[in-house]
Amino acid sequence: MSIWKGRFAAALDKEALTFSSSLPVDKRLFEDDIEGSLAHIAMLAKQRIVSGSDAKRIRKALQEIRREMRSGHMKSLEHGSANGRFVAEDVHMAIEARLIRKIGAVGGRLHTARSRNDQVALDERLYLKRTIAHMVNSLRSLQGALVKQSRKHSRTIMPGYTHLQRAQPILLAHHLLAYVSMLERDRERFSDCLTRAARSPLGAGALAGTSFPIDRHQVARSLRLKGIIENSIDAVSDRDALVEFIAACAMTMMHLSRLAEELVLWSSQEWGFAVLNDALTTGSSIMPQKKNPDMAELVRGKTGRVYGDLMALLTTMKGLPLAYNRDMQEDKEPLFDSTDTTQSSLHIMAEMIGSVEFNVERFEVELREDFSAATDYADYLVRKGVPFRAAHAVVGTMVRNCVEKKRSLESLSLKSLQGFSHLFEKDALDLSRPHKSIARKKSAGSTSPREVEKALRRWERALRKTGKARR
Amino acid sequence: MSIWKGRFAAALDKEALTFSSSLPVDKRLFEDDIEGSLAHIAMLAKQRIVSGSDAKRIRKALQEIRREMRSGHMKSLEHGSANGRFVAEDVHMAIEARLIRKIGAVGGRLHTARSRNDQVALDERLYLKRTIAHMVNSLRSLQGALVKQSRKHSRTIMPGYTHLQRAQPILLAHHLLAYVSMLERDRERFSDCLTRAARSPLGAGALAGTSFPIDRHQVARSLRLKGIIENSIDAVSDRDALVEFIAACAMTMMHLSRLAEELVLWSSQEWGFAVLNDALTTGSSIMPQKKNPDMAELVRGKTGRVYGDLMALLTTMKGLPLAYNRDMQEDKEPLFDSTDTTQSSLHIMAEMIGSVEFNVERFEVELREDFSAATDYADYLVRKGVPFRAAHAVVGTMVRNCVEKKRSLESLSLKSLQGFSHLFEKDALDLSRPHKSIARKKSAGSTSPREVEKALRRWERALRKTGKARR
Amino acid sequence: MSIWKGRFAAALDKEALTFSSSLPVDKRLFEDDIEGSLAHIAMLAKQRIVSGSDAKRIRKALQEIRREMRSGHMKSLEHGSANGRFVAEDVHMAIEARLIRKIGAVGGRLHTARSRNDQVALDERLYLKRTIAHMVNSLRSLQGALVKQSRKHSRTIMPGYTHLQRAQPILLAHHLLAYVSMLERDRERFSDCLTRAARSPLGAGALAGTSFPIDRHQVARSLRLKGIIENSIDAVSDRDALVEFIAACAMTMMHLSRLAEELVLWSSQEWGFAVLNDALTTGSSIMPQKKNPDMAELVRGKTGRVYGDLMALLTTMKGLPLAYNRDMQEDKEPLFDSTDTTQSSLHIMAEMIGSVEFNVERFEVELREDFSAATDYADYLVRKGVPFRAAHAVVGTMVRNCVEKKRSLESLSLKSLQGFSHLFEKDALDLSRPHKSIARKKSAGSTSPREVEKALRRWERALRKTGKARR
Amino acid sequence: MSIWKGRFAAALDKEALTFSSSLPVDKRLFEDDIEGSLAHIAMLAKQRIVSGSDAKRIRKALQEIRREMRSGHMKSLEHGSANGRFVAEDVHMAIEARLIRKIGAVGGRLHTARSRNDQVALDERLYLKRTIAHMVNSLRSLQGALVKQSRKHSRTIMPGYTHLQRAQPILLAHHLLAYVSMLERDRERFSDCLTRAARSPLGAGALAGTSFPIDRHQVARSLRLKGIIENSIDAVSDRDALVEFIAACAMTMMHLSRLAEELVLWSSQEWGFAVLNDALTTGSSIMPQKKNPDMAELVRGKTGRVYGDLMALLTTMKGLPLAYNRDMQEDKEPLFDSTDTTQSSLHIMAEMIGSVEFNVERFEVELREDFSAATDYADYLVRKGVPFRAAHAVVGTMVRNCVEKKRSLESLSLKSLQGFSHLFEKDALDLSRPHKSIARKKSAGSTSPREVEKALRRWERALRKTGKARR
Repeated sequence: MSIWKGRFAAALDKEALTFSSSLPVDKRLFEDDIEGSLAHIAMLAKQRIVSGSDAKRIRKALQEIRREMRSGHMKSLEHGSANGRFVAEDVHMAIEARLIRKIGAVGGRLHTARSRNDQVALDERLYLKRTIAHMVNSLRSLQGALVKQSRKHSRTIMPGYTHLQRAQPILLAHHLLAYVSMLERDRERFSDCLTRAARSPLGAGALAGTSFPIDRHQVARSLRLKGIIENSIDAVSDRDALVEFIAACAMTMMHLSRLAEELVLWSSQEWGFAVLNDALTTGSSIMPQKKNPDMAELVRGKTGRVYGDLMALLTTMKGLPLAYNRDMQEDKEPLFDSTDTTQSSLHIMAEMIGSVEFNVERFEVELREDFSAATDYADYLVRKGVPFRAAHAVVGTMVRNCVEKKRSLESLSLKSLQGFSHLFEKDALDLSRPHKSIARKKSAGSTSPREVEKALRRWERALRKTGKARR
Repeated sequence: MSIWKGRFAAALDKEALTFSSSLPVDKRLFEDDIEGSLAHIAMLAKQRIVSGSDAKRIRKALQEIRREMRSGHMKSLEHGSANGRFVAEDVHMAIEARLIRKIGAVGGRLHTARSRNDQVALDERLYLKRTIAHMVNSLRSLQGALVKQSRKHSRTIMPGYTHLQRAQPILLAHHLLAYVSMLERDRERFSDCLTRAARSPLGAGALAGTSFPIDRHQVARSLRLKGIIENSIDAVSDRDALVEFIAACAMTMMHLSRLAEELVLWSSQEWGFAVLNDALTTGSSIMPQKKNPDMAELVRGKTGRVYGDLMALLTTMKGLPLAYNRDMQEDKEPLFDSTDTTQSSLHIMAEMIGSVEFNVERFEVELREDFSAATDYADYLVRKGVPFRAAHAVVGTMVRNCVEKKRSLESLSLKSLQGFSHLFEKDALDLSRPHKSIARKKSAGSTSPREVEKALRRWERALRKTGKARR
Repeated sequence: MSIWKGRFAAALDKEALTFSSSLPVDKRLFEDDIEGSLAHIAMLAKQRIVSGSDAKRIRKALQEIRREMRSGHMKSLEHGSANGRFVAEDVHMAIEARLIRKIGAVGGRLHTARSRNDQVALDERLYLKRTIAHMVNSLRSLQGALVKQSRKHSRTIMPGYTHLQRAQPILLAHHLLAYVSMLERDRERFSDCLTRAARSPLGAGALAGTSFPIDRHQVARSLRLKGIIENSIDAVSDRDALVEFIAACAMTMMHLSRLAEELVLWSSQEWGFAVLNDALTTGSSIMPQKKNPDMAELVRGKTGRVYGDLMALLTTMKGLPLAYNRDMQEDKEPLFDSTDTTQSSLHIMAEMIGSVEFNVERFEVELREDFSAATDYADYLVRKGVPFRAAHAVVGTMVRNCVEKKRSLESLSLKSLQGFSHLFEKDALDLSRPHKSIARKKSAGSTSPREVEKALRRWERALRKTGKARR
Repeated sequence: MSIWKGRFAAALDKEALTFSSSLPVDKRLFEDDIEGSLAHIAMLAKQRIVSGSDAKRIRKALQEIRREMRSGHMKSLEHGSANGRFVAEDVHMAIEARLIRKIGAVGGRLHTARSRNDQVALDERLYLKRTIAHMVNSLRSLQGALVKQSRKHSRTIMPGYTHLQRAQPILLAHHLLAYVSMLERDRERFSDCLTRAARSPLGAGALAGTSFPIDRHQVARSLRLKGIIENSIDAVSDRDALVEFIAACAMTMMHLSRLAEELVLWSSQEWGFAVLNDALTTGSSIMPQKKNPDMAELVRGKTGRVYGDLMALLTTMKGLPLAYNRDMQEDKEPLFDSTDTTQSSLHIMAEMIGSVEFNVERFEVELREDFSAATDYADYLVRKGVPFRAAHAVVGTMVRNCVEKKRSLESLSLKSLQGFSHLFEKDALDLSRPHKSIARKKSAGSTSPREVEKALRRWERALRKTGKARR
């Protein structure tokens, strides 16, 4: 028996059912659906809309169904009733059908003062609530791994880059902590999203509210949500919380793609800065020498996928008149896919960062040969009174000269220096030494050991609170 | 035993394996993979790179594996060997592992002169070849359904719209045939894509070609492909054919979303032009009177999904250095998802168009009351020598006048007409009649019955050839 | 003289300059750039990095340049120096060149302890700060217009839709207030974005901080920002604030596209619910009777554009290694385009909503003929003890019966009703009346006049505070 | 005087005009618009719909307007008439207003049997026709530059990469020719697009065709188009050709982004393979030593922009009912932006490739130290009868051994080799030499000098035909 059989002459075409059923996807919401139903039936009983004894039977049966599903009996649910038709339409109907099979017509009372429109909106918000908690946890774990490596390398100097060209020497810790900051903003965005997501749409009915004397706030409280979505039409037509969540995932993946790119670069033969754990790399089916940074490449590649999820949902929602439209069923796959992709990418990245080995000696060799210290020479002249632009020009000429003669700045004698500017004095011979360059930095948040140590301590403290400082 | 165990100290981390395995997704390519391997081993034997008897054993075993998989033994394959490790990495490794278990080390000869890089590229192209054939078939079916409805309504007049405002009367057939034209371009795009897709990359090896005396053209011929991808680096680093295919899907979905939107509008109470088959609509869990055009809404909604697939793959490919990078593994889900979504949307749309009933009487009532004939009045004046812009202004005034007085153009007497322009004569009284308006159209491809009949015949002929004229 | 002439043998290719110059786009940041420079030079003086008199000359000259630019002398700036080369590269260089032309080499001191990398990041954040203020203002204006119409129509009943099918009667005010809620979330998102955007990156230098004893916090305070971006590498490599801002724009546009779609539908002949202001519609170049809802269509169409901007920036940022890369210059056009498109769409929408006339009588006629009251019949039976599912089936049959006999629910006699269920009593004859249906709603946030009045008052109060309640 | 003033009581709101006017954007179509109008008026005269003398006056005036616009008088056009109102709406109206000002009411005859709907569709297709010709030319130029470098480096051996790890030695020419192949497919896609784009929609009128006895085919012929878009509704509602064009641009940009990434990598200190022309790189505002590959970075960054354009137009077109909707006005900016971005990126890339210097000695040093020859060792064993998988394992162990002992494969003595497999004989000592590895390749399209020479000759021949072989 279909739920809408009264109105219809013909049964839903089989192919149409397959095309339109969301059960294979939304069955993942079963915990949320049952949690929501339990809160709903409790409220219905409290408000005397359903009798206490009916409510009790329904509650018990729902808990039973939950147990069945947890132990993998979802399959049976998919073909749950004699006439399999409506069962397969979505998880809500599948559970209700099962309920009615278990306890008969009384099961039909559960849907009093409720529509699938507000029900699915609630399920998705309960899903977001628990998912965002996991996500924040995963972000914290990756931050933890980065902070731990930073501690280990709080004195390791490496070349800093802009335009992928050597720019200035920096501390490796400082570089890694830049990612910790990015992930912190990601965390904030998920939290902001939660503020808006964790509200109850239940009680909005199909779109207009209901004539039953329900207590929407009570349901919200019992589900530990932060209040209700007031306007009933808004409550069922909106998918903002999902779009916002997926946008936050997209930004997180963007950050991870940058870190992944760096791991790929650093573990190339050319860079040779980092050695990835064997257990996180793979070989080639044909080239016996290969050790490929596959996990990093996959994280980078999966970024496109989450961008696609974002574009998919935004496109789907574009131009839909109020209130619910069936198009909105297409919200679930991008939601779940973003969750899974971002979650697992964070996880694997934490593993990689946790186990990567940095090639400290290589850094030192490299820094000696490049021109990362050039800014220090220019700043030196500025301190002697030369306007910055003029100082910049002087040092530019020095560098060009060195490049042409295949020399390093370090190798210039005081006399050579003075050939470029008479303001160079003996102390200028020190300028090319990376650790001096680092140490000279004075500004807040700079790469100076003092500032990096401050930052490290702040992060260690922050993460300790959340139990993620050590892994 | 892992395929790259020689090189590595540690086994791939379990989580990393789950994160990176493509088997759950690419197992769908098993037919293509085996087809490709059969062609490869035949060529190896012909070129005497592998002995005839080894080749025979391999061929027999591959055919056996194909039978197993067709009868659903994929599952066993997923855990195919004693040590499950590498088996699960992808479908290619899964099949090879199975092969080696069946016939021992000789199975290892199959991968001679081949890399997974060229192997997967071949599999995807074989997949595209058969998928495009299905897609063209599905496009033809929907065209067939549209042409059939057009034939049925070759004389039904309806209001034509621009800006969703009534514009001019048109034939329903003419409107439906506009979609047939769109789908024809879609078909052409898929064909163009096939021209580039149906080429063999096999023999490119990892990226550099191979030192074995293989015959790449022979493999291409035996797989009925249109030649080879010449440059071996290009052959393994390129995913153009997939991007192009998904872009074609996105355009097809865009067309379907427009038709879907029209079905939703037409079946609204306000429009009341079309009645969808009960078997393709659904009811409400709460409102007993509802008959919702869910299938049309879903087609419209799923458009976002295919756009997302396109964006995903484009993003993934952006900025990748040559040749193969693991990021490219992420090409399969957008590919399969676009295929499935577009295919099933075409199918359900053909069902909807095949069974929709148009409310012919409603059209007539509606046309009488609107101002769709206004252009005809203006053209009348132009034929009497008035410059178009001036004629347009005269009729604009007439319409405004009618709107204010709540009258129709039809109701204007000759005298009233002459009040606007003395050039109106008796024959102007006919101008408001829709079928006259239609009949007056003279231009090629216009909505005149003669032109529409010509178009109809042309399409019927074209589709008859492909066996899709009647369904 | 190029700023980097010291280092280079050849001048930048002319075409390369055109290709790479951002001046035509980023000149829009000139106010922000000068504001930032003024704060920077004040701090440099305070910290005695630059002498008080030099700072004064620089400040005066910057203010002069600002006046020139405000009075449209930007053009001259674009070709600002004898050798036009570097001037045209970007707005920062253009202003600095102008400065040096005005006051000579001393102007070169402004760039002490600063790099373009932190400078442009600051400019963009100052831009976001003022733009978000405007955006919030525009959101408030549209909310104001919606609330005002809601007040006017606080008792107007109209059909509510799901799946674009008539569902249940609702108050027009309730429908419009759903948009007010959506826009409120948009406003919150912009505010959240501001929290992260309004921080100062200045002092991060090229990427490593600086060896000059600057006071980053002082600069932040003087620009009324909420602190600094700590990590110097993060400060120059991050564009999160922009992506987040554009994502918020995309969601706002998504909401506007839905309202636009409804305006298009409502002003169609078929719906006939709303009449747009003549001054906001356009005619046809050929059809004299047309009155097209162009502004609504354009808002809907422009949604794609902002989605495109989001995708553009996300794609550009994907996979970039730290720190600054020139790719990031491509952030400005999506930023500005999103701003302009969203801002102007909000504005035009406020005009449309402010001036639209609703066809109140039409609503009443329409509601009499449809089946929107069906849920009320079902709920009636539920209150008499019938389980919801069973009640739903009874009323479904009633509706089907009516459809077949072309009758309305209203026309059913008590006897007919009892033919479907003996539980129907005399009071059931009232069920079909829309205003009764509305009045019966009890739940918080429902469409009942009492709840809508509460919501209206709440919004009026909230907007009054911001001066947007009346326009 | 507005073109639709007859119908409307109020004039278009000023802000609405600014919001909706496309003139600032579509003025770029003026050549196409006038070309189309000239063909239209010639046909109208030939069909005696407009008198020969009127047509002559119109033609002369149009040619005059074209001259004015070419000499930069577009500005005057933007405020072209006494009452500036409708002039500013779009380029079509601007030109028509100018026409009427010049020759009076007779100018109004030009719009006979035409609507802006078919007019703009024609303009866009004429634009595509000439733009695709330019694009193909630009593709050819870049191919030419690549082929020329390939010729220069037809014997230069470099490491080939997969996963950005050294894989096997390849010829630099072979690598560059991979891009030539990609660009060739891009060219094909543009050509395919042209086949569908170069058709005339003129004569479709607003949507229904026209009652004037026009000759659509004659117009198409005189514009050198390949026929007409038959169905008049399709002709005005479709934007396929634009979407297809932008999709082709997106794919081209994807290819360029890969080449750009490689240029960035190759010109890093770490790679040191390539030195970009000074005239195509830039310095830093703060670091005197920098020489940044800005042009390559910008090309890579601009990829996002074209992806955004594609997403924008696809989104805009989604779900639009037939026929023309004003949303479609938003097609022009993505169209023009894609054109400009792709065109200029191709151009700058051709400059970069034309002038890049490769560091040939570096390649040789690098190849000596890596394990690129490993596959050759494995293939050697296969030829001695070892199944591929077993050979792979043997060589994997060899490589691991070398890595641990920091040795190269080259340094292994015959005895050491035989320690891994007794099948190694004296000739195995040669295996590690890159040029031998290259020379051993036998397969078609491989990196062997013979195959690369063949490919080079083929491309040189192909490009010579189009005059692009030498630049």
